[in-house]
Amino acid sequence: MTTESLVNNLFNTDYESIPENVKEHAKKSILNWAGVAIGSANHPSVGMVLDLKNDLQSSEQVTILGRSEKADILLATLTNGMTSHIFDFDDTHLDTIHHPSGPVAPVVFALGEWYDLNPIEVLRAFVLGSEVELRISNAIYPAHYDLGWHITSTVGVFGAAVSAGLLLKLNKEQLLQALGIAGTQSSGLREMFGTMTKPFHPGKAAQNGLLAAMLAKKGFTSSNQVLEAKRGFSAVLSPTFNLDRVNENWGKQWELLKNSFKPYACGIVLHPSIDACIQLRNFAEPMNVQEIQLIVNPSVLELTGKKEPRTGLEGKFSIYHSAAVGFLEKAAGQAQYDDEKVMDPNIVAFRSKIKPSINDDINEDKAIAKVILNNGTEHKVTIEHATGSIENPMSRASLIDKFIALTKPIIGDEQGKKVIRKIERFEDVESIEEITALCRG
Amino acid sequence: MTTESLVNNLFNTDYESIPENVKEHAKKSILNWAGVAIGSANHPSVGMVLDLKNDLQSSEQVTILGRSEKADILLATLTNGMTSHIFDFDDTHLDTIHHPSGPVAPVVFALGEWYDLNPIEVLRAFVLGSEVELRISNAIYPAHYDLGWHITSTVGVFGAAVSAGLLLKLNKEQLLQALGIAGTQSSGLREMFGTMTKPFHPGKAAQNGLLAAMLAKKGFTSSNQVLEAKRGFSAVLSPTFNLDRVNENWGKQWELLKNSFKPYACGIVLHPSIDACIQLRNFAEPMNVQEIQLIVNPSVLELTGKKEPRTGLEGKFSIYHSAAVGFLEKAAGQAQYDDEKVMDPNIVAFRSKIKPSINDDINEDKAIAKVILNNGTEHKVTIEHATGSIENPMSRASLIDKFIALTKPIIGDEQGKKVIRKIERFEDVESIEEITALCRG
Repeated sequence: MTTESLVNNLFNTDYESIPENVKEHAKKSILNWAGVAIGSANHPSVGMVLDLKNDLQSSEQVTILGRSEKADILLATLTNGMTSHIFDFDDTHLDTIHHPSGPVAPVVFALGEWYDLNPIEVLRAFVLGSEVELRISNAIYPAHYDLGWHITSTVGVFGAAVSAGLLLKLNKEQLLQALGIAGTQSSGLREMFGTMTKPFHPGKAAQNGLLAAMLAKKGFTSSNQVLEAKRGFSAVLSPTFNLDRVNENWGKQWELLKNSFKPYACGIVLHPSIDACIQLRNFAEPMNVQEIQLIVNPSVLELTGKKEPRTGLEGKFSIYHSAAVGFLEKAAGQAQYDDEKVMDPNIVAFRSKIKPSINDDINEDKAIAKVILNNGTEHKVTIEHATGSIENPMSRASLIDKFIALTKPIIGDEQGKKVIRKIERFEDVESIEEITALCRG
Repeated sequence: MTTESLVNNLFNTDYESIPENVKEHAKKSILNWAGVAIGSANHPSVGMVLDLKNDLQSSEQVTILGRSEKADILLATLTNGMTSHIFDFDDTHLDTIHHPSGPVAPVVFALGEWYDLNPIEVLRAFVLGSEVELRISNAIYPAHYDLGWHITSTVGVFGAAVSAGLLLKLNKEQLLQALGIAGTQSSGLREMFGTMTKPFHPGKAAQNGLLAAMLAKKGFTSSNQVLEAKRGFSAVLSPTFNLDRVNENWGKQWELLKNSFKPYACGIVLHPSIDACIQLRNFAEPMNVQEIQLIVNPSVLELTGKKEPRTGLEGKFSIYHSAAVGFLEKAAGQAQYDDEKVMDPNIVAFRSKIKPSINDDINEDKAIAKVILNNGTEHKVTIEHATGSIENPMSRASLIDKFIALTKPIIGDEQGKKVIRKIERFEDVESIEEITALCRG
């Protein structure tokens, strides 16, 4: 019984038995989540969701990252999950394209702040919720994703329920029921990509998972075999699946260690090309460039082939824009994907010099780039593994730079540095409120 | 474009263009919904959901049917949708096994009460939301249901969004977006049948649909082709579908007229057998009965073959218990499915006299029953169309009896009769509050 074994595994995994490197990686994931969540706090969609507070006359319980107002734990969870994904700049489990922190971190922060929970318990709940998400995603990827499901939300709801369930101290039977109540709320269609509803997905997964655990705690009944039942989650939402992946090597192999962080605020397929263009800039000034040739994986043109993007969001789906800003600005952070930047005449003009071509032998994290100067000189760069890949992860310094760049406009430099210090020493903070108070805008 | 055509059809259908018989049928549907919702208001699961108010410190905005406390419009919608389905006694569109009122009525009542909306607008929103649900269900049934989806919730969310969208006066573009936000929240697994999570489904569909419309009103963006897109609702959630069914004969044929009401508090496949046993009682006293033979559709033993039910809920999945109470008590209302009744020694003993056998030539709404007395005498009854089928609908008088039987323990006889009068003259009430005030427990 997959679901029951999973619950048993969770109960057998106390804080001490989680390896140090996993805990460290969890703190990096939380830092990355907090950065993107704070950074996007003023996006129009956030104001729309928080306006629900007026409609519902709802209470102020916990922090909305990057905002001055609070919300009740369910609405805060929705909002802080949504902001994790607005910039498409969140963490990624590359094997499954699952972004684990979005559905889980908002839950552990909301409960941790509201019930003033021990940070060590909160960190354990984050690790185990994330681990459950990624293992379930392993079991159903790629068939589930290919069918059209947004895996971060469809599976994220289980991680959220586990994190919440552990923090609310459900017993085994209640946690089984919570997984059932979570799984039956699983939803999120890839058709929504490119709209505000895409980041709404991980927020809703977080909220639904928290709701599931809250109800299970009260005795609400559900299925105790949601993963493996004939009409359960896997059979209904995935054409093929391998449920062995959920529990195998539990406690020995940690999927969370494969969680990676993006240096650039766009889809991962663009990252090797951006890396390459940043390096090429060392050999040439823009005015001297005749063209930049890129050899890339076929998915690059399939997913990000937009030649004339007109908005920041469209820019994220354009190899032309992304390579251009990589070369011109040696960066591809959120600032390189705002609406003005995408319409900047210098950048628009330079986009026409970008010449991508596809090659089946090039992996997704690889790119070969060649700049040809007006005088005929050529320079070539090969990126074997893009920054942010498992083989070439972002350094601590880069993660910190990313956090500061994202949060400085909202909470300022100094406060941002304090948040970094607190999250890096998560086990030592007195309370979660100590962190969240610093994350308010 | 299916979704856009649907929105155009909705905008072209004003109150006057809805035929009188459709409006009358809508009022019957609302009466039936209110009865089952009030009747199940004290079920333990309702207390659990309403306890969320304490966790969230949420506000009291509108009526929870059958309860004294109120809740905010989203939580009230969840609760009033859940209670529609707790007794499995709600309305049914027999072509698709979709129970249309559960996801829609809570939305129109919450908004109608909170914003003090014109009852005529509320009735139109109920009719059109229901119509949308049933038409979408027609398009994907049976493949979608057979895969394991609880169609009432997966599709109900669209009806809820439409009803809410019309009452919140969304423009066409906003209503398209609302359908997108609704569809991406579509969820509900049949694995949950037999647990508290089953009735949670229509409640969540109602709540998610209302949320979708509220967000769309604020400018939240989504897909404008959720029904027909390559990775949209139909393609992802149904192995086969025919989207022509959504808009064909709009305004000429009304699916809502096919909505039927249950005389008995159990699955429809049991109804012809119960009808038959009630009639057989006219020929025999229990003490004289040797056995009762039933010839039924094969689905009866597949779905309701439980020989020794031990709880009220299990009794609903037992032809043996259902036929026994039909004969012994000439009834199969909610009172015949409480836990005590199912364990009553007289009824338990009589169950062993029920001898069902299946026959492929017997339709689902047909049954043949024969009572054999101890003295060898036999009496036979054939039910061609069970009460509650399209061919043999419940009379107004039976619907009223059902309403009173369900609601008397909660709001009393006299108040119940007032509710009936108000709902039967829905267009003439001054405000929705006039009705809901009478529905409080």
